[in-house]
Amino acid sequence: MFDFKIIKKDKNSRGRIGKVTTSHGSFITPCFIPVATSGTIRALDNNDISELGTTVILSNTYHLHLRPGDLLIKKFGGLHKFMNWDGPIVTDSGGFQAFSLGFAVEHGVGKIANNYLDFVDKKHINRVTEEKFAHVDDKGVKFRDPVNGDKVELTPLKSMQIQSNLGSDIIFAFDECTSPLSDKKYTSIALERTHKWALECLKVYDKKQALFGIVQGGEYKELRIKSAKFIGKLKFDGFGIGGSLGKSKDDMHKILDWTIPLLPSGKPRHLLGIGAVEDLFEAVSRGIDMFDCVAPTRWARRGHLYISPAAGGTAENKFRINIENKKFEEDAGPIDKTCDCYACKNHTRAYLRHLFRSSELTYFRLASIHNLKFILRLMDKIRDSIEDGSFKKLKKEWLG
Amino acid sequence: MFDFKIIKKDKNSRGRIGKVTTSHGSFITPCFIPVATSGTIRALDNNDISELGTTVILSNTYHLHLRPGDLLIKKFGGLHKFMNWDGPIVTDSGGFQAFSLGFAVEHGVGKIANNYLDFVDKKHINRVTEEKFAHVDDKGVKFRDPVNGDKVELTPLKSMQIQSNLGSDIIFAFDECTSPLSDKKYTSIALERTHKWALECLKVYDKKQALFGIVQGGEYKELRIKSAKFIGKLKFDGFGIGGSLGKSKDDMHKILDWTIPLLPSGKPRHLLGIGAVEDLFEAVSRGIDMFDCVAPTRWARRGHLYISPAAGGTAENKFRINIENKKFEEDAGPIDKTCDCYACKNHTRAYLRHLFRSSELTYFRLASIHNLKFILRLMDKIRDSIEDGSFKKLKKEWLG
Repeated sequence: MFDFKIIKKDKNSRGRIGKVTTSHGSFITPCFIPVATSGTIRALDNNDISELGTTVILSNTYHLHLRPGDLLIKKFGGLHKFMNWDGPIVTDSGGFQAFSLGFAVEHGVGKIANNYLDFVDKKHINRVTEEKFAHVDDKGVKFRDPVNGDKVELTPLKSMQIQSNLGSDIIFAFDECTSPLSDKKYTSIALERTHKWALECLKVYDKKQALFGIVQGGEYKELRIKSAKFIGKLKFDGFGIGGSLGKSKDDMHKILDWTIPLLPSGKPRHLLGIGAVEDLFEAVSRGIDMFDCVAPTRWARRGHLYISPAAGGTAENKFRINIENKKFEEDAGPIDKTCDCYACKNHTRAYLRHLFRSSELTYFRLASIHNLKFILRLMDKIRDSIEDGSFKKLKKEWLG
Repeated sequence: MFDFKIIKKDKNSRGRIGKVTTSHGSFITPCFIPVATSGTIRALDNNDISELGTTVILSNTYHLHLRPGDLLIKKFGGLHKFMNWDGPIVTDSGGFQAFSLGFAVEHGVGKIANNYLDFVDKKHINRVTEEKFAHVDDKGVKFRDPVNGDKVELTPLKSMQIQSNLGSDIIFAFDECTSPLSDKKYTSIALERTHKWALECLKVYDKKQALFGIVQGGEYKELRIKSAKFIGKLKFDGFGIGGSLGKSKDDMHKILDWTIPLLPSGKPRHLLGIGAVEDLFEAVSRGIDMFDCVAPTRWARRGHLYISPAAGGTAENKFRINIENKKFEEDAGPIDKTCDCYACKNHTRAYLRHLFRSSELTYFRLASIHNLKFILRLMDKIRDSIEDGSFKKLKKEWLG
């Protein structure tokens, strides 16, 4: 089952409060969805997830397909049972990682890409001449597993089958995700494929799941509008906005402004992979209902901890401190004096700095708890402010 | 304040139940003390520690002195406040790591040693001719910080000062820990130093803390007896048995049999750094009251998870499974069906195997929770069995 109801609209923007209902429970939007890449939110357990106030999580089809394998997960009754999480689960299509593996390797960037180059150079491929790292055609994408070199193929059908095996509540259609360096010509070709694949996915997906289509088109107005019109007319349960969002925050805002008015207003809209504090405000005000992003936990692991305006957070410092900074050596205060997370209630910046510098596993846990709680509480505040008509004021308090 | 009362004695062995009281609360012995090396039990938070049923923890003076520094911790009001743990804390003297750094480097083994060699080779020392890695004389030990190359000196006075700054409840006298490869002559020289330093520590230690002396003497009967008689007569609050415990389990048992009858029966006895399942039974039956060991958490991080006899654990398999084993790929059971820890109540072996193979931080947490809970529950059972006269039977059930 799947349902979306709009509960309240903001008077000054396209922002709105909604309720998504799935067979594993419901959640209120706009919401931030923590990422449990391989079936766990890094460093946290399921108790933590609930205690943080998380109502829905997102896992990655690409990772789970490769390890431990969606067929194994199916034997356990699906991802909910395999990881013992009974709330709503979203999965992506697997395409993003496969395609970004392709262009990341071609451009020589990224951790996966670097591992991959080591691997393919040594074992399988003359990388200059013989084989492309991710081969895309109208059928789908072929690539090699970066860990063991196995040939892997993803197609619209295969993505739908894998996501059916995972048994997630909300799934995404298979799309071609282009590089920020792709030109208009290539982006246009990729867009045609994405549209063709959207139709294929709609035919073959597991009807017990809710299927979201994805609007592509890169930074090109003509293509974004074309895609929003095409995808927006199909019988999807919701819509993702994916692919390259341009080279600046302004580009992203424009893309949202071109796209969102063309999508059916009664269905949820998910901005894929975005989660910076400023972006949450700007995208909610443009009508985005759902976000997922690894940023809170990834930044946490790297020592960057979120702080609110009351603790000195600004758009300039990206609402973050670097806990490794010497100035926190004797700091007896919490990360953020307005935060009620376990780390802030129990520990000082000085202690967290010590744990970070000692590479203690406990640090990763405490930092991840803080950053996720921070973003989830911010989303609470955003919803409350739409509820009582003060969203514009809240946005100004945070972004200036 | 410090007090030790014997509550009950086992009828068939030297095993006994006791109660240790400190100004941060009391704990019942025999007990296992989890190790919070740098002021945290790896991968766990303080809530976890309490929920596991931990009543007392041990931190390492060597690590905390180097990072973040005992003077910083003193500024925060001591280690209890710095790490926000209000229960009893034991600290070791710092000597073990300094001395083992010395002989580990000389023998070219160990992680610290390898880092150290890299460091000293590149930056400071011609390691063959110019400087020993840890220089020991009658005053104490000089070595270089393996991380930054700073010269560090530990003496009886310095160890007492550092432990006073840390403000732990139970501290250890500074002793010379010899290598398992040290001969009788060297061990004898080191023993004389240890005895001299014991007298110095008794003079200068912070009388708000409880001071435990350490019996040394390696695997040599004459030296162990000499040490137990000398140290046992001094006004310590308790006694540690340290240093090399020989080359086999039998050697260890002999050392305990020589030593323990010579120590005052009314004071607690701590077997330093030992924590294997078999050793807990054998040492308790010989009169040991306190254990500390990194084994449960270290084995956990390496994939080795404890199982009880009911789940197939035996002395032969060391009561452990290796979760990476392919045979657990589709295992829908818990690690140990008799265990009530969070990991066993909520997750399958298949899921834990997947997390381990994916190097997920959550794995380290779940595995550490299981292994610690397992050992703490075993100590509960051992105490219960002494209480109701069934210790001999329990030991037989486990060790055969």
